Amino acid sequence: MLSDFGSKDPYVAEMKAVILSISPDAKIVDISHEVEKFDIRTGAYILACAAPYFPKGTVHVAVVDPGVGTGRQPIIIQTGAACYVGPDNGVLALAAKNDECLESIHKITNRNLMLPNVSSTFHGRDIFAPVAAHLANGTSLTQFGPEISKIKIPRFASVTEKQRALVGEVIYIDEFGNIVTNFQEKDIKTMSAGRTISVRIGNDQHALKLCRTYADVSPHEPLALIGSHNFLEVSINQGNAAEAFGTRKGDKVEIRFS
Amino acid sequence: MLSDFGSKDPYVAEMKAVILSISPDAKIVDISHEVEKFDIRTGAYILACAAPYFPKGTVHVAVVDPGVGTGRQPIIIQTGAACYVGPDNGVLALAAKNDECLESIHKITNRNLMLPNVSSTFHGRDIFAPVAAHLANGTSLTQFGPEISKIKIPRFASVTEKQRALVGEVIYIDEFGNIVTNFQEKDIKTMSAGRTISVRIGNDQHALKLCRTYADVSPHEPLALIGSHNFLEVSINQGNAAEAFGTRKGDKVEIRFS
Amino acid sequence: MLSDFGSKDPYVAEMKAVILSISPDAKIVDISHEVEKFDIRTGAYILACAAPYFPKGTVHVAVVDPGVGTGRQPIIIQTGAACYVGPDNGVLALAAKNDECLESIHKITNRNLMLPNVSSTFHGRDIFAPVAAHLANGTSLTQFGPEISKIKIPRFASVTEKQRALVGEVIYIDEFGNIVTNFQEKDIKTMSAGRTISVRIGNDQHALKLCRTYADVSPHEPLALIGSHNFLEVSINQGNAAEAFGTRKGDKVEIRFS
Repeated sequence: MLSDFGSKDPYVAEMKAVILSISPDAKIVDISHEVEKFDIRTGAYILACAAPYFPKGTVHVAVVDPGVGTGRQPIIIQTGAACYVGPDNGVLALAAKNDECLESIHKITNRNLMLPNVSSTFHGRDIFAPVAAHLANGTSLTQFGPEISKIKIPRFASVTEKQRALVGEVIYIDEFGNIVTNFQEKDIKTMSAGRTISVRIGNDQHALKLCRTYADVSPHEPLALIGSHNFLEVSINQGNAAEAFGTRKGDKVEIRFS
Repeated sequence: MLSDFGSKDPYVAEMKAVILSISPDAKIVDISHEVEKFDIRTGAYILACAAPYFPKGTVHVAVVDPGVGTGRQPIIIQTGAACYVGPDNGVLALAAKNDECLESIHKITNRNLMLPNVSSTFHGRDIFAPVAAHLANGTSLTQFGPEISKIKIPRFASVTEKQRALVGEVIYIDEFGNIVTNFQEKDIKTMSAGRTISVRIGNDQHALKLCRTYADVSPHEPLALIGSHNFLEVSINQGNAAEAFGTRKGDKVEIRFS
Repeated sequence: MLSDFGSKDPYVAEMKAVILSISPDAKIVDISHEVEKFDIRTGAYILACAAPYFPKGTVHVAVVDPGVGTGRQPIIIQTGAACYVGPDNGVLALAAKNDECLESIHKITNRNLMLPNVSSTFHGRDIFAPVAAHLANGTSLTQFGPEISKIKIPRFASVTEKQRALVGEVIYIDEFGNIVTNFQEKDIKTMSAGRTISVRIGNDQHALKLCRTYADVSPHEPLALIGSHNFLEVSINQGNAAEAFGTRKGDKVEIRFS
């Protein structure tokens, strides 16, 4: 389960209660409920990070849903690895795209597989949780609604080349203040650990050593490394890089090889 | 499980460890541990929201307990739907009252169904967790202590009518900043979606459209709607109403029909 | 599970996903993931508080690991009560020391019991989670790596006597603002409830009644008591002592008996 509901309100518990009412043996794991409100991109990023580690056949339900109650479709995406349930607003797309094989996409229209009363503000509990539970019970995909051919793909910044620099952006800042960029290992494959790279984040230029681990530099020194999710991160050993650099999600990032 | 223990301290884990030691197959679901410290009313509200969605026979244990170690009674409330365990200070009363049928109330006095050492500061772990686990194991209610006839009912603001206005209060502010009032759907049954109502919160007067969903107004516009727990909410589409209006729990709310 | 990963990022979910992939029937309980980043002592304290309440044979995995990717050893500590998995930096030592019988310590070196790709920044997912899952499955300790004779013991402030005062320090401040000191019940065994003690925290001197429960003093009054984990706490009934006194972890504490 992933959402932007936070851990104080009863929303997540209501979804779990609905799931366990329908599928009493379901094993429920929280990915995160602390996604910033309405921040579809962060939800998509966190889901894409975690999903590959789950057992084959896992049902993921992700609810970051600013358009709840409007026309956006509730969907199920079936891949070779997992099943994704949520609104068709991009929150599922990145994780589903990372899986090797996209098998089918279904709109959710069958009211018999939702709660009897569907509110207009909380589809997580009234639609997505019961659908996920029925999927966990083995209900066939075709029962939920008609197959469709495509989903909404989020604008997820691509890496471009411009005047001998690679241009991308900050896609995430983790709780340690590590600045995660959208440069993947393959984008910087010509580089080797130990080299210094020039990184421009927002308006500031940094010369950073490309390291293998945070502790390759002294405490409180900045560094660059390929993080454990295969994205280039800018970090400070035992410190908070995002605070130190005043960096926010969406800030432009440029890399030059010295 | 519901408490005001937060997620950093070991308290919740100790309760779970005690439960699993006694009832290894128990399936434990957190409702919330982020209730404000000692805020019995918020705990009661969140428990009442979530409880109806759990499977019949669920054992709820709720610990918001400013009077721990004093004379307040540890109790069990059995209803037709569920079993509630906690202090008799009102935290259980709202959820239990919502269930259709109140079957019995028992004081918890049997030391053999508590931990061997009962501290004076942490009855959640030493009394309520083991009692909940024994209940999950099927131990008969009469084993825990004598039946009693009534519990403490919290002063939960009722809606009154005054000079052609309905007067109530803010009972909750959720993580999205939605302002939940104690007006229920039935209190405003004469109103229909699309009408504008005049809502006074604290000292400010707002003319708000009664909507079916947040997205019925433009982003950053305020609105009123019946939320997914059947209370009237004042919200801002994709925004934080409580911050924008400077609203706090307990603020008086008046509604007039234009 | 205990870590300093927080609840927003996907890290904890990835560890759980790895555990369930290897040991599908594992019952996973979170102790805390809100330990301050890199704060080994707080992690050790919280783990030591919670561990005694878990069923015999529990596998604890604790990851507060500022030295990840450096030479610090991944270890398993087997005691008569439980099995502890994590880095050899002190985070496991306090809990393991509290258990009655230390049976063996093993370095973790067998790559076949880790994930196929071990990143240099996230041993929680790549080493500790799979090792914990294999332990839960019953894999023999000797399979993980060679036995070693000792672990790193954290400098955990001991209580000393100096000019008729007991000198210790603040080891923890809980979410209620209770100031937990490292004075244990046995250190102050000559004292009895109801007596007033003189407590110096930082530069301020307080005359505090030694109470049995918070409610032994009026609301908003300070007090001292032996908390539910057997450490002396300085608290304010229904208030936040740490905020009121400006106290931080590590502050020196002196007790004098009047």
